[in-house]
Amino acid sequence: MATTTLPEAEVEVSRQENKKSATKYVYSFGGGKADGNGKMKDDLGGKGAGLAEMTNAGLPVPPGFTIQTEACREYMRSGGVSKEVDRQMEDALAKLEALQGQKLGTGENPLLVSVRSGAKFSMPGMMDTILNLGLNDKSVESLAKRSNNPRFAADSYRRLIQMFGNVVLEIPKHAFDEVFDAKKKQKKTKLDTDLDAKALKEVIEEYKKVVKKHARRDFPQDPHEQLVMARDAVFRSWQNDRAKTYRRINNIDDMLGTAVNVQAMVYGNLGDTSGTGVGFTRNPATGAKEFYGEYLMNAQGEDVVSGVRTPVPILELQKLMPDVYNQLRDITTRLEKHYRDMQDFEFTIQDGKLYMLQTRNGKRTGLAAVRLALEMVEEGLISKEEAIFRLDPNQVVDFFVSRLDEKDVRPEDVLTKNGLAASPGAVVGQIVFTADEAVQKAGHGAEKNPVILVRAETTPEDIHGMEVAIGILTSQGGITSHAAVVTRGMGKSCVAGAGEIAVDERAREMRARGQVFKDGDWITIDGTTGRVLRGKRKLLPPDPENLAKLKKFMDWAEPFRKIGVRANADIPRDAKKAREFGAEGIGLCRTEHMFFDKTIKKNEGDVGTIEHRIRYMRAMILANNEKDRRTALKKLLPMQRADFLGLFKAMEGLPVTIRLLDPPLHEFLPKREKLMVDIASLSNANAKQKKALVEDYREYGANGVGDLKQLLPKLLARVEELHEFNPMLGHRGCRLGITYPEITEMQAQAIFEAAVAAEKEGVKTHAEVMIPLIATVKEMANQGAIVRRVAEEVFKEKGRHVHYLVGTMIELPRACLVADEIAKEAEFFSFGTNDLTQTTFGFSRDDVNKILPTYLAEGILKQDPFASIDRDGVGELVRIGIERGRKTRPKLEVGICGEHGGDPSSVEFCHQVGMDYVSCSPFRVLTARLAAAQAGATDKLKVEGGRTK
Amino acid sequence: MATTTLPEAEVEVSRQENKKSATKYVYSFGGGKADGNGKMKDDLGGKGAGLAEMTNAGLPVPPGFTIQTEACREYMRSGGVSKEVDRQMEDALAKLEALQGQKLGTGENPLLVSVRSGAKFSMPGMMDTILNLGLNDKSVESLAKRSNNPRFAADSYRRLIQMFGNVVLEIPKHAFDEVFDAKKKQKKTKLDTDLDAKALKEVIEEYKKVVKKHARRDFPQDPHEQLVMARDAVFRSWQNDRAKTYRRINNIDDMLGTAVNVQAMVYGNLGDTSGTGVGFTRNPATGAKEFYGEYLMNAQGEDVVSGVRTPVPILELQKLMPDVYNQLRDITTRLEKHYRDMQDFEFTIQDGKLYMLQTRNGKRTGLAAVRLALEMVEEGLISKEEAIFRLDPNQVVDFFVSRLDEKDVRPEDVLTKNGLAASPGAVVGQIVFTADEAVQKAGHGAEKNPVILVRAETTPEDIHGMEVAIGILTSQGGITSHAAVVTRGMGKSCVAGAGEIAVDERAREMRARGQVFKDGDWITIDGTTGRVLRGKRKLLPPDPENLAKLKKFMDWAEPFRKIGVRANADIPRDAKKAREFGAEGIGLCRTEHMFFDKTIKKNEGDVGTIEHRIRYMRAMILANNEKDRRTALKKLLPMQRADFLGLFKAMEGLPVTIRLLDPPLHEFLPKREKLMVDIASLSNANAKQKKALVEDYREYGANGVGDLKQLLPKLLARVEELHEFNPMLGHRGCRLGITYPEITEMQAQAIFEAAVAAEKEGVKTHAEVMIPLIATVKEMANQGAIVRRVAEEVFKEKGRHVHYLVGTMIELPRACLVADEIAKEAEFFSFGTNDLTQTTFGFSRDDVNKILPTYLAEGILKQDPFASIDRDGVGELVRIGIERGRKTRPKLEVGICGEHGGDPSSVEFCHQVGMDYVSCSPFRVLTARLAAAQAGATDKLKVEGGRTK
Repeated sequence: MATTTLPEAEVEVSRQENKKSATKYVYSFGGGKADGNGKMKDDLGGKGAGLAEMTNAGLPVPPGFTIQTEACREYMRSGGVSKEVDRQMEDALAKLEALQGQKLGTGENPLLVSVRSGAKFSMPGMMDTILNLGLNDKSVESLAKRSNNPRFAADSYRRLIQMFGNVVLEIPKHAFDEVFDAKKKQKKTKLDTDLDAKALKEVIEEYKKVVKKHARRDFPQDPHEQLVMARDAVFRSWQNDRAKTYRRINNIDDMLGTAVNVQAMVYGNLGDTSGTGVGFTRNPATGAKEFYGEYLMNAQGEDVVSGVRTPVPILELQKLMPDVYNQLRDITTRLEKHYRDMQDFEFTIQDGKLYMLQTRNGKRTGLAAVRLALEMVEEGLISKEEAIFRLDPNQVVDFFVSRLDEKDVRPEDVLTKNGLAASPGAVVGQIVFTADEAVQKAGHGAEKNPVILVRAETTPEDIHGMEVAIGILTSQGGITSHAAVVTRGMGKSCVAGAGEIAVDERAREMRARGQVFKDGDWITIDGTTGRVLRGKRKLLPPDPENLAKLKKFMDWAEPFRKIGVRANADIPRDAKKAREFGAEGIGLCRTEHMFFDKTIKKNEGDVGTIEHRIRYMRAMILANNEKDRRTALKKLLPMQRADFLGLFKAMEGLPVTIRLLDPPLHEFLPKREKLMVDIASLSNANAKQKKALVEDYREYGANGVGDLKQLLPKLLARVEELHEFNPMLGHRGCRLGITYPEITEMQAQAIFEAAVAAEKEGVKTHAEVMIPLIATVKEMANQGAIVRRVAEEVFKEKGRHVHYLVGTMIELPRACLVADEIAKEAEFFSFGTNDLTQTTFGFSRDDVNKILPTYLAEGILKQDPFASIDRDGVGELVRIGIERGRKTRPKLEVGICGEHGGDPSSVEFCHQVGMDYVSCSPFRVLTARLAAAQAGATDKLKVEGGRTK
Repeated sequence: MATTTLPEAEVEVSRQENKKSATKYVYSFGGGKADGNGKMKDDLGGKGAGLAEMTNAGLPVPPGFTIQTEACREYMRSGGVSKEVDRQMEDALAKLEALQGQKLGTGENPLLVSVRSGAKFSMPGMMDTILNLGLNDKSVESLAKRSNNPRFAADSYRRLIQMFGNVVLEIPKHAFDEVFDAKKKQKKTKLDTDLDAKALKEVIEEYKKVVKKHARRDFPQDPHEQLVMARDAVFRSWQNDRAKTYRRINNIDDMLGTAVNVQAMVYGNLGDTSGTGVGFTRNPATGAKEFYGEYLMNAQGEDVVSGVRTPVPILELQKLMPDVYNQLRDITTRLEKHYRDMQDFEFTIQDGKLYMLQTRNGKRTGLAAVRLALEMVEEGLISKEEAIFRLDPNQVVDFFVSRLDEKDVRPEDVLTKNGLAASPGAVVGQIVFTADEAVQKAGHGAEKNPVILVRAETTPEDIHGMEVAIGILTSQGGITSHAAVVTRGMGKSCVAGAGEIAVDERAREMRARGQVFKDGDWITIDGTTGRVLRGKRKLLPPDPENLAKLKKFMDWAEPFRKIGVRANADIPRDAKKAREFGAEGIGLCRTEHMFFDKTIKKNEGDVGTIEHRIRYMRAMILANNEKDRRTALKKLLPMQRADFLGLFKAMEGLPVTIRLLDPPLHEFLPKREKLMVDIASLSNANAKQKKALVEDYREYGANGVGDLKQLLPKLLARVEELHEFNPMLGHRGCRLGITYPEITEMQAQAIFEAAVAAEKEGVKTHAEVMIPLIATVKEMANQGAIVRRVAEEVFKEKGRHVHYLVGTMIELPRACLVADEIAKEAEFFSFGTNDLTQTTFGFSRDDVNKILPTYLAEGILKQDPFASIDRDGVGELVRIGIERGRKTRPKLEVGICGEHGGDPSSVEFCHQVGMDYVSCSPFRVLTARLAAAQAGATDKLKVEGGRTK
């Protein structure tokens, strides 16, 4: 007895007790009817529901039964299932035996079954399967007789022991592989299939010893015991690491559990009139309406995917077995119509008879999704409203990347085709092995060289290299590795985890297919397919035909969209791009980027190169007093004014939200530890080191070592003054503008002078001045007053008024809680959910990668809260903030400008909580538009659903 | 016209318009009756309400009128007052003139008035006053004739021009001082009073020139213009920096505004039957029931406080003017009875006639407050329930500090008596001038030397020195300076801003009264009174009689207290102390302190000195794998177990809340920048430097330079791994326990083994295991499961169960928002409002001092949110957290363990939101108990108030 009790746990247990008698755990199917149906995915899983549905539709499905997901959840909770589950399973088995006229693993014609997992959402290959269950030392003989194929029988038994041993008894695979390989060596054979029945029987005996040794028990001869153990093992496999990771990536609830499907075995390997295959009702890569798939005769499912034998295109089956082929086409066509979506199916032919083993909606590329959706509407299969849900908004990017010209893909150039397609698009570039090298070689602007950063794995330290590289290739790491995640965020091509490529960063070389590549060598990577090729392969631009299809698709979707989509853009070039994608304004212009962005060369005449900008910015920061600060700010004024004028022109007529200076000032100065180390090193540095040091500080006015001795301590003193233990929570945002009001004044002046200048040129402006990091209404009042005063001053001086708003970025929990107060002073809210996530969770975004992997692996978090908004916590604050803000100011304009603005799930959330718009990076604008449209359409469907009730 | 409008501002304006006609702005008093009364402090201010009340009571008060606070608020909003105010003021003036039979500044007997501020709460000396208003070139002659004292008339006029010039026209004081001093020099006189009427008339002419030069206008001769200008200047003085600072410190709302009192002048300097004085109805320092005060004959108020003449004890007046004295005693006794509190009063005697100028509740020391309260209850003046509000909970500390033995205070030893009494208590110590020196000289434990850190001002860099010093003395900085704030928090004696002492930190000397003090010299400081004395003065321990009074007082208060008070204590010694002060448990034991606290020598036999502890802790952190980590943890286990056993014994029968490891691990290792610099310096260091470096790293096993070359890069590598950009938001709290479950296991094992051991010794335990930094219920479930499993293991092994709870520290916004979820797993909540304030505001506590001074000065924050809980933001999250947590678990135990737990206002808040207890540092326990009792009594009074209605 524990001294503490958890009342909730007790409640849960008693709830189960109550339910137990009423729960139907096991659903039979076979003989033309099923207990369940296709809608019962929650209980039966996708596979079980499909099998029931196909059975009910009279399709040839091997009979069996499905143990529903509640049994799995029970297993997770208590480590076992209730007796009721066992009882119902025995009943269903008896029914199956009666239907088949066989007994499980017994008699002259023993019933053999497969035991397969099947969750609500497809998780291909993640959980475990047992085939040939029911075989034992006795029934294997019966099977040999019955099939008249002793080798087939022995091989089936051998496979059962191996699968069962591995999956159920958790014996390492290699323990069996060693036995099998030794036998092949002994028999001097190469292929598995070369081992005859006698050899396989010897293997079986050895396998049994392996089981005994590792599991400390015999392989169970009782078929019923096999079945119970296999079922439980499948339940357990729901919790294995692969499955957990898959669910995390695909955002599948850990608590759903899997169903277990027990089904009479059919064999595709009984001879030349047997076979097995997989297929799609349409092409999943292009969406073309063509029967697509492959099969192998005299083979089992695993032979099709293992690659030992090359499968045959499914169209060949038409010649070989026209009846079966026609039956299959007929069935799958009916299935597509029935499910109103492209189907991904599996079938087996046993002695000339077709069996359907599975059907489900097929996965597809973005290109295929759109084509399918358009054509199915034309065919009258689905409505336009349904169609717009057929494209995952994240797949929009597939339409805009370069493609490999397949005509230029010669097999000898392909270094691997098994990398992970981590971030789409094909690129050609020169290899670099370090981030620093990437920065060095990539160059700037017109002289920019395409480089591909090749690493075993990338880390946050590589970010600067990833930013300048055209693409990233890694040899390790999965679909959630740093490289994969970051490049998808950047919209940059990436092939990750290409295991066939060896990267030796120290030797600065990459080896693949026996060839060695050094830095500077050209390669081509295709993040859409996961291929890596040597040399400069030809690329094709995005297909205009596809883009036209996407446009048509988006035109259908747009009317459903209720909330606006703006873009985060800091310079006119990005603003223009965003507008092309349909952005309806700028939701976030980060003015500090105007001082960092090295791609800005010159802006509107002689208003300052990036070097000038940084120099004056630093002069401003290093100033000891307001007067010197104002002098430096005066130099920055025309530069900012020109920036803003460019933005206003690019976004003519649309709102432009400009955030005042946000980052802590020390970000513009050298790092503290570098200065400390440089000072410590200076006196004893050799000539070369000294020269390098002078170079490092040339932009601060250092021309020789003498200068450094003066400069460095001075710089360090200021950096120390500005140093913060937690810069994220430090002297930044509106706190800068409050301590240095002259900065706010300069920025406001630049904004309003630019707006007036634009309007004088006939360009309509709509500036929204955004004060960052507001926690109290008094901060807002303080900064708002400065902005409004400067506006009036500029308008008076220039003799012209322009329309503008003053509002705030809501990015601190306190701001959400006192939003009613803040809305008295702020005319708009823009939720900065990046920072809001940091403070709400207490997660530093720069550091969270030390915590996140464990949290995701342990299931503590289902997803990275910086990627998709945390609805329960951060979202709750957003809800509170909107509600309270609009209580004060009912027409308060509300948007979001964190990176969540480009994440479909987050966009849906923003729609639900009643925001006016989302703002995201330009290349996510289409994604956001589609996600917003889907959210709007969902609302409409709900309302209509309600109406028809 | 602004292009943007603030609807709320418009609403406000129109509300004012509506109110204007109805508002009574001016309240007359005089002739035995007043428009207002003593209850109208909101409108009339304390002084105005007191004058009205005294007038109504028939006391001799010079007549006049009060312009109420709404006019001041109007002035703040719009920069002026409405015409209605002017109109009402002229009416009241006419009434006053009629009553006095005089005209303002006109005629043979001109009416002269004083214009004084008077806010709801007393703000002595913070705002401005104008005396003798109504004098001009003409009326000064009338006054001279009427008083038959030309020198008095000229001096009054001279003073008016000076005050008016400074206060109303904002002319620097020194401009007038220069004229006056020049005149004294010219006349070869020393004292002001030596200047005769002629000289003063010359001064007046010079003063007029000063006005003309600085204000570019003449001194106004129109008395009505003088009055309007003076009134507005008083309104403006509400907003001066001194007043704002005072309000901030005393937590007075900036929006209250001040009233203005215009009152007929009476003069104490008309000759030997005139005089002026101040007094208290009881002794404000001791609380003794004695008539206490001082006066001067033939003097004005400012002469009493300026110190030029030595005032006479008020008892002397009895001999000199027995009638007046008896009248004064009679009046003030009536006033004390009327106000039911000790009164602080001002009076003037003009030609033998007594006038009361002010009465208010007097400020008092903590000792006096308690004595007063006890005696007034005995006298039947107040009830016990009222009495318990008469001590500010923050003053409790006054009872526990050492006192100067006044018998040992010789005038020649007093270096200054005008320092700020920043943090109470008298201490004797040796001077040190730097924090490092303090650490070096202070020594440890038994060899501890008392040092007093003397600085111009302290900064956060000095904290380590402040910690070891026995007291702090600064020559600069006010009552909110770093030294003052930090020492109050530490409960350490401090005299701040002692301007008569010059500190030269570079020369390492302090000068006072012509004497030079070097480091090592002995001084005595008295933080209770602000005195600094040379040498070792005798100190007295806390007075047992006073402590007995306090006990009686607390015994009255305690029954009203509804919430518990626990203490934050990490070691048995502190726990015992807390229990002596009445702590009802430990609310926070920070287990990491057990590895830092250098005062722990040995614990329960040979279970590890502090050096051992840190060494194993570091070994744990430097371990590369779980195995090595577990080995180090095994060494730490017996040490922690002994710590906990000590705590359980000290708190026998009371709850002990133990927080699992919280800080980021890098806090236990050397600083990153130090390692970088040391590595850079190592190769070129000279012998001495090398030796010092080896010394620095000896505890990491360095015995020579050779070791360092290996060690430092290794250490740096680990420190780099652990480095975080924002440690506050980093890998700490439960995140450590989740990534390193073995740490949680070890700590849980130590707790439960200690609890079982204690119970076996017959000591009842009540452990509450607290998981820090929870953001999600899954974190809580993860760590809770480990703790509960280890508990069961220990109980099974030891054959004994103990009672315990597992709960969490709620210190992140997200935890408050999902408290309903978290309460499913947590059996108690303890709000960590330090961190919650950091994340809710986005303020790093380590860095906020760069922002806070500006924020407080600008009125953006009214108080430091780390000192007193921010009710609107942080408090709102606390409310949400409690409400949601109790929705799931109605009997959830809820407390607070941030430093707010010892702040009276925060304690009141905790009471209001229904917490079960507060926890604070041991020496704040009494403060918290009293604050909690006051909160409980307030509730009771409210309920009773409701009942009697």
